[in-house]
Amino acid sequence: MAYSSKLIEQAIIEVAKLPGIGKKSALRIVLHLLKQDPMETTLIAGALQELRDNIKYCAVCFNISDEDTCTICQSHKRNASIICVVEDMRDVMAIENTEQFFGKYHVLGGVISPIDGIGPEELNVGALIKRIEGNNEIKEVIVALPSTMEGDTTAFYLTKKLQPFKVKVTAIARGVPVGSELEYTDEVTLGRSIMNRTQL
Amino acid sequence: MAYSSKLIEQAIIEVAKLPGIGKKSALRIVLHLLKQDPMETTLIAGALQELRDNIKYCAVCFNISDEDTCTICQSHKRNASIICVVEDMRDVMAIENTEQFFGKYHVLGGVISPIDGIGPEELNVGALIKRIEGNNEIKEVIVALPSTMEGDTTAFYLTKKLQPFKVKVTAIARGVPVGSELEYTDEVTLGRSIMNRTQL
Repeated sequence: MAYSSKLIEQAIIEVAKLPGIGKKSALRIVLHLLKQDPMETTLIAGALQELRDNIKYCAVCFNISDEDTCTICQSHKRNASIICVVEDMRDVMAIENTEQFFGKYHVLGGVISPIDGIGPEELNVGALIKRIEGNNEIKEVIVALPSTMEGDTTAFYLTKKLQPFKVKVTAIARGVPVGSELEYTDEVTLGRSIMNRTQL
Repeated sequence: MAYSSKLIEQAIIEVAKLPGIGKKSALRIVLHLLKQDPMETTLIAGALQELRDNIKYCAVCFNISDEDTCTICQSHKRNASIICVVEDMRDVMAIENTEQFFGKYHVLGGVISPIDGIGPEELNVGALIKRIEGNNEIKEVIVALPSTMEGDTTAFYLTKKLQPFKVKVTAIARGVPVGSELEYTDEVTLGRSIMNRTQL
């Protein structure tokens, strides 16, 4: 497509690089910004740049944080004896939203995926082991990783690595989602939910 | 939703203001930028800021342009005797893509819409009349506005305003879109297409 301005073209190319945004949406976004007060553009450009420049990762759990240690790691109200291991910060947010977990987190920054060249060294696994090694207070590690081959591989690897320590390693329950009909649940999930049945 | 970082929250709030982007997409975009090279963020923030700071509108046709006069208005290859009046620059791009029009444009910057407080004074109508007044070369004005009540009102207004001048005022054809079945075409369009039938 031919644009009447190089500036427009450049802005569209950059915006269209974002996930889930194509050229048409990018054009719509750019024209929207042009119709708004110039301050709006300064706000969004500034917010993105400042985020990228000043973002930090918590030195303890590797969650995204504004300070060296995140608010969850700093909090004395959280149960320091349980660590929930997750893939990324979106999972922390999802679990926090349930208001069912009051322990601390450890963000791996991904899952083991040889096909993408991601081994344990690329993840925050070493830091997790050091964290458990140096702290007798930790009694349980909950592995809350995605139910995929990569997630299961990572969970298996972590279980092996944590065996030498006096911690209980658990995994979040797999089963029929709340509100789901049995007939529409896939066989693997349904099979597992029978195997892992709980007493009422 | 609670974010672990004020910077993240601020960036998400700003990105979610863009059209067609909600909080979830904004979070996805922000996390995507954090995973990329910091240069990528500088590129997008810079492109948006530069666009907003340096964008110009062509002094003749009000299309978006990098210079004082846009490339179409400057071009001697374009037929200066026909002006196509459109709502905004997206329409210029759409018509240019057809490769069927070789005249010049005039961008109104909107259509008359009393409900939104947009009257002829808010649009580039005065400039269009001055443009025609001062130029005997212009023989035809094609009104290419949306087929809505606001578009039709604007077209009617323009026709009235251009009556004193020696220009032919035409409108783009309304009818059954190419490739459409008659049975699925709405009655108004089909009715008009019969009224405005052309000789084969």
